[in-house]
This record gives sequence, C-alpha cells and structure tokens, in this order.
Amino acid sequence: MALKVYNSLTKSKQEFVPIEKGHVGMYVCGPTVYGPSHVGHARTYVNFDTIRRYLLASGYSVKFVENITDVGHLVGDGDNGEDKIAKQAAKEKTDPYAIAYKYECMFFDCMDKLNVLRPTISCRATGFIPEMIEMVKEILAKGYGYVTPRGNVYFRVRDYHKYGQLSNRKLDEAKSGERIDVADDKENPEDFALWKSAEGGHIMRWDSPWGVGYPGWHLECSVMSRKFLGDTFDIHGGGLDNIFPHHESEFAQSEVATGKPFVHYFLHNNLVTVNGTKMGKSLGNFVTLDDLFTRHSPMAVRYFILNYHYRSPLDFNETEILKAEEQLNKILETYQKVAVLHKNGAKNATADAIYANFVAAMDEDFNTPLAISELLKLSKLANAMLVAGEDASALADYFDKMFYILGITPKTEKQEDKSAEKLLDLVGEIRAELRAEKNYALSDKIRNKLAELGVTSKDKKV
Amino acid sequence: MALKVYNSLTKSKQEFVPIEKGHVGMYVCGPTVYGPSHVGHARTYVNFDTIRRYLLASGYSVKFVENITDVGHLVGDGDNGEDKIAKQAAKEKTDPYAIAYKYECMFFDCMDKLNVLRPTISCRATGFIPEMIEMVKEILAKGYGYVTPRGNVYFRVRDYHKYGQLSNRKLDEAKSGERIDVADDKENPEDFALWKSAEGGHIMRWDSPWGVGYPGWHLECSVMSRKFLGDTFDIHGGGLDNIFPHHESEFAQSEVATGKPFVHYFLHNNLVTVNGTKMGKSLGNFVTLDDLFTRHSPMAVRYFILNYHYRSPLDFNETEILKAEEQLNKILETYQKVAVLHKNGAKNATADAIYANFVAAMDEDFNTPLAISELLKLSKLANAMLVAGEDASALADYFDKMFYILGITPKTEKQEDKSAEKLLDLVGEIRAELRAEKNYALSDKIRNKLAELGVTSKDKKV
Repeated sequence: MALKVYNSLTKSKQEFVPIEKGHVGMYVCGPTVYGPSHVGHARTYVNFDTIRRYLLASGYSVKFVENITDVGHLVGDGDNGEDKIAKQAAKEKTDPYAIAYKYECMFFDCMDKLNVLRPTISCRATGFIPEMIEMVKEILAKGYGYVTPRGNVYFRVRDYHKYGQLSNRKLDEAKSGERIDVADDKENPEDFALWKSAEGGHIMRWDSPWGVGYPGWHLECSVMSRKFLGDTFDIHGGGLDNIFPHHESEFAQSEVATGKPFVHYFLHNNLVTVNGTKMGKSLGNFVTLDDLFTRHSPMAVRYFILNYHYRSPLDFNETEILKAEEQLNKILETYQKVAVLHKNGAKNATADAIYANFVAAMDEDFNTPLAISELLKLSKLANAMLVAGEDASALADYFDKMFYILGITPKTEKQEDKSAEKLLDLVGEIRAELRAEKNYALSDKIRNKLAELGVTSKDKKV
Repeated sequence: MALKVYNSLTKSKQEFVPIEKGHVGMYVCGPTVYGPSHVGHARTYVNFDTIRRYLLASGYSVKFVENITDVGHLVGDGDNGEDKIAKQAAKEKTDPYAIAYKYECMFFDCMDKLNVLRPTISCRATGFIPEMIEMVKEILAKGYGYVTPRGNVYFRVRDYHKYGQLSNRKLDEAKSGERIDVADDKENPEDFALWKSAEGGHIMRWDSPWGVGYPGWHLECSVMSRKFLGDTFDIHGGGLDNIFPHHESEFAQSEVATGKPFVHYFLHNNLVTVNGTKMGKSLGNFVTLDDLFTRHSPMAVRYFILNYHYRSPLDFNETEILKAEEQLNKILETYQKVAVLHKNGAKNATADAIYANFVAAMDEDFNTPLAISELLKLSKLANAMLVAGEDASALADYFDKMFYILGITPKTEKQEDKSAEKLLDLVGEIRAELRAEKNYALSDKIRNKLAELGVTSKDKKV
C-alpha cells in the first residue's frame, strides 16, 4: 500500500512521492499571535501533527517548518485596515512585540498540552524582513508587480495566468469577493499587497526601496518556506480558510519569484464550526483552549478531533468531547493493564491484522476515524484476552505504535493529578469501612499518616 | 527603606531610582542557543527573575527584555572563528535555525520548570538585522568605526574615551587579553567587530552596505535594548563573564550611536564554579539542567541557588542541593498545614516583623540568603503556633508573599508525583496491617480497587 493524499492543487487523491527519497519538507501556516488559541487552532495543528507523525512512523525524516505571523496580517484579511497585532497592543497598552510573544507562548503551551510536536523550525515573520524585501525586488524585476506613488507595492494578478487555480476562482468572480479590498491606488481591486507603506501610522515598520513600510501578509510564507525548504518542496498545509486569498497569493508570489513549481502537495484541513458557522476570534464565537482544558483533558480534545477526518467538517460539541474522553479512558485503562505485563517480544496474528488495517486507513489520506476504529478493535482484543486469562503482553507494542501516530500519550498531566485524587478517595473509603468495622485504631493511624503527608484538607472529606 | 543595588558602572551600592516613576525597563543578556541549558544558565536567570519579582512585588511595572543569540557569537567569544550555532548545526547535520529553535525550546522548558517568568519580550538576534545595519551606519557616520577592504566593519576602541570603564581595563592591558583577537585587518587588536564579512563561508548571511555578512556578537543587545526600552533605560543585567568584552562593547556602541547614557544600573551575577573553575559548555565541565532535574526537583535547585547572594561565588555541590531540598520540603510541609486553615484575614505582629526583615534584606541589593533566613523564621513560628494549638491561619499570606518574590511554587510537578507515590505506599502499609490483623476481606477489596485504578504494577510491592 502506498500513501495517498488529497491534493488541493489537483483536486484529487494522489500517491505521495517525495522529492528526495526518505525525506519530506513540510510547511504549515502558523497562527497570527494576537489572541488566545482556540479550538480552530487545536484542530489545524493536531491534524498536521498527526500527518507529520504518520510520515515519521512511515520512515521519513520530516523537516517541519511553521511560521508565526507577528506583522502584516490586517483585520479582515485584506490589504487595508489595522494590523491585528498592533490593534491588540493598543488595546493592552503594550508593545506589539510583547503581544506577539505573549500569544506565541500561549499557543505553544496549548500545543504542548495537545502533544503536538514542536516544529523543526518556528519562524517569526518579523525575523525575515530583508529576505522579504529581496523577494519583492525579484517579483518587480520580473514585471509582475508595480509600485504606487504612495509607496505601496502590489502584485498584478491579471499578469499571472495561474492565479485562481488553487481556489478555483475566476478573476471576475473575485472582483466583488468578500476579501477583496478596493484600495485607492491598486490598478485592479484583485491585486494584492507585497509591501505596504506605513503611511497609516503602522508602528511596526522598516526601511525599504519603496519607503518605510511593512510586508504584505502573504509574503512571509513564500519567503520562509523558500529559505528553509527550497524553491520547491513537498507538502504545504493550512486551514481551508487560508486557500483564498492567502495560499493563492503565496503560490503566485513564489512561482513568479523562483520560476519553479512552488509545492507538490497542498493539504487543507476543514474548519471547526459552531452550529454550522466558522469558529474564529474575529467572529467572536470561539472557545479558547485554556477554557476548554478546564473542562476536558487536552488528550480527550485531541482524540475528539481525530475522530473526524481532517477534511470533514467538525461541529464543536462538548457532549461529544465527553463521550470521546470516556472512550479514550477505557482504551488507556486497557492499555495500562497490558503495559504492566512483562513484554515477551511475541507477535500476535490478530493484532497484526488490526495494525495493517490501521496503516491502510492512514495511507488513505490520513483517515483517522477509521484508524481509531482499529485502535478500538485492539482494545477489545486486549480485554478479551485478559478476561480469558491469555497472555496479552504482546499487544502493548501495537498500542504504542498507534498511540505514537495519533499523538496519544498514555498518561497526561491531568490524569496523574487524578490518580493522586483517586488514591485519596480510596483511602477515604478504607477509613469509612474501618470505622464501620469499629477498627478505630487503624482508622486514626491512617488519618495521622495523611496529616503527615500534608493532605489535611482532603482529610475533612473522610 | 529604599532599594539599593550594586552598580557595576560605579562599582558601588546606590539607591535605585527609575527613570519613569513606577516603571522599570530591564534588559538581560539571554543564552546563545547552541547546546542544552546548564547550571550556569539556571543561576543567571533565577537571579534576575528574583530581582524582577522583587521589583514587581514592590509595585513597579517591569518591561523585561531578554535576547536569544542565534547568530554572531563565535567560538572563543572573539571576532574570529566559527559561529557557535553554525558549528553545532554542522555537527547535528541540520539547519542553524533548527539548532537555534531546538535549544531555545530546551532553554525555556528548563526556565519554566525553575518558575522563571517568561520575558515580556524574547527577541532573537536574527530578527533585527535591518536595525543592526542601521546602528552600524550611525556609528560609522559618527566616525567611531571603519570598514576594511575585506568587508569587515570594526569599532575603533581608542576613539571612545570611556572604553574600559565597566571592566576597569586599560587598553594596554587588554591588548594581550584572553578574548582579544589579532585579526589581520583590524587597525588595533582591541577593536571589535560591528559587522563581519561572510567570506569564511558563514552560512547565516545578509546583504549590507559593506557586502554580504553577519552582525558582530555585541551589536544585537545594543539594538534590541534600544528598540524596546529606548536610548537610556534602567537596568541591564547579565553574568559576570559578560562584562568584557560583551557589555563593555555594547556600552560603547550604544552611547556612540545614541549620544546618550546607555543604562543607569548595570547588574552582574557571579558565576557557577565546579571546584573553583567556571562552569560552561565551552569548558566541558557543565551539568545540564535536564540531567540535574532527574536527581533534584527544579524548585530545590532554585532554592539552592537563592541560598547564595547573586554576587557571591557559588560552587556547584549536589550534597548542598539535597540539603536545600530537605529544608525546602520542611518549609512547604509547614506551609501546607497553614494554608489549609480558613484564612481569617488577621495580622500577626511577629510575622509582620519577620516580613519587614525579609523586605529589608531584599532592599539591600537583593540579599536572598538573608531573606531566606527570615522565611525559615516564619516557618518556625508557624510550627510553634501549630504545636501550641494557636490559630496560625494568618501566616499563609506572609508565606505567599515571600514565595512569590523568591519564585517558589508551593507545589511542583515532581512533588505531585510524589504525593501519588506516597499515597500508594500508605495504601500498601494499610494492606499489610490488615493482613496482619487477618482482615483479608478488606485487604483483597483494596487490591481489586487498585487494579481498577490501573496501578497493578505498584500492587506487586504490597
């Protein structure tokens, strides 16, 4: 079986063949760091982390590059308006760099909890201004851009025959599109900014051949993917909402600048909706991860996300997360029982078949819900063997392999907390039982021991 | 009482007066991210974190800027040789940016464990190349630098009358100093690089008016401190080993570029030694924090560090860490007993006096060992009151305030783990006791409950 992926460029499932044997170069659009991470972020980065993990488990080395947008992403996603970071900085009365760093930290903190592997390289847009200016110069030299008297530089979309191939838009359609600005100094409304003049008082600004300004939103990804992965690389990922204008514009910039194909496979994950509407900070209907993690373990959230195929819609529903958590806990309990047995290195034919199905599901455009159904079969098999008193020790390795790919950690921090809590409850029950048996001596001894351990608060419950 | 700090600029203790009332701008030299964090890092950043916390507790708002050196720091700390990051990248066969990111993550992971607050802004040197080029231009325009035919730009040290004021070096002494390079194209050996040509195959490189190259090591701190804190700011911190050539050169660059005083207070913490020798990666005698944390809780390491004044030498000694851990655990146990009591908001005159002494110790150039002796007095008072059956609930607030300043968290992850472990041991003891009492029914019931909790492995111990 070979891995097949749905390529947004060709709108079809294709066999995955890397440029360099054994190696995958992968770029995923990272967050704009102007607010707390929400469920939409969790979905995107859990999805691409699972894809990365599957590639790693398949024997590839993966160079995984992810950007941090800390400048140039304007409110409304167009070419006019306030910078999202600068706006938040004004609101919090602090430095835009402080805002970006604060929310970058929050983002990675949430991702760590979700067991999302750190990128090989995490790169901030502000760190690559000289390289961005170079690319704008290249695009201008090739005749695909123009400089306006106000010091803005735009990409002339009509000159680039492939524009629209990713998003399937024709230029006439796009004209009145929801993300198209009618900027005074554009030749055509569909043109997009490569460099913007800081005339509007933009506080993050740099010198350029076109005056003081800042980069257009799409430029950073073209520049940083090229710097770290080369002119042409294997996989570009991002959320479905990034296809237009972001990826379409990125694509145009990169191919014009390098004169080479940009990327072989463009992968897009579907969005998180709330009652059918997109979830997002700008829409005001988002659930932050910090908030969500007070009610559900991050592992349960991850497991819930993976119960949906990355290209399917996912309507946010906490009852479903609870159900997923229950299911996951049962799997983990079964795993614990198997994991503590002495491993004898033996194989198990039924588990072999289950794992082969798991791999086949992942090979089919990363079908995680199908893969999870195989994990459930493995768990069922383990329980049946344990009940029958058979030696289930061989199964731990199969669990481990599936857990690695799905990014499930057998023990999460929260679960560890709970184990202390559960043990404390158990000790409480024991004491109640002892008192019922009138064994006050032992009951009191336990109470004193608990006090020594500094858990007097819980002692009141007993 | 007013805060007094030892100022390396004046070589004396001075009252601390901020530029802007109620606000402190503070810059601390961050790590060069080419290897795992070691005990030397722990000391520096715990020291400056405690200083920051004390300023916060004293009512200041603190803008705390810390850099990440990801380019330009050469092996040997001079102006010739390999870039530390690039050298490690070649060794690990990866991208210099991947090396920098990997070790930056490790650094912050260790700092998080040590309860070091994240900087307000963490800034990477590579992110500010345009600003660095600007400052080199300013220095050249003012006549303090020169460009060589090889495309290097040097700062002409003899032209700057204050050079040597921080490190107390005279230029003739420095001539044969251990960190002075004899580069072919310097006018004088003591001159230092502002910009280096990438002629030696340096892989991190940018265009500049002087050709393709990279910034001199000292430049980043002058540029980033100015960008985020202004031409003149309150506190600059760093390790004693940074005084020369790093801070001396930074100082010269900044004052020449801005024409204003660079910083009001320069604070330097002393080094960690091993048998009297400096600990450092380049010296090969360093203990990594990841390794150390397998043997001691990060909180114990922090407490151990704070038992030394930041300007005193600290000879690394794990027996001393163990002693510190024991002492800290006793304090935390006492705190737990007090913290679970219902707070009645009352004051305690003895504790008031102890806290006043704690503050007085911190006011005296952040004398943490003296401050800790007051924490021990508070703990002793709490124990005495508990034994006497007096209401000790008022003491929790005093503990909290001291813990905040010292950065001690009442519960660390490791301690939580231990509490589950200790509870499990307790349950084991209960079962042994029950079996001794021939109460097999309850003993077996407990065993089954433990199995349900998935702690069968531990069950064997019972």
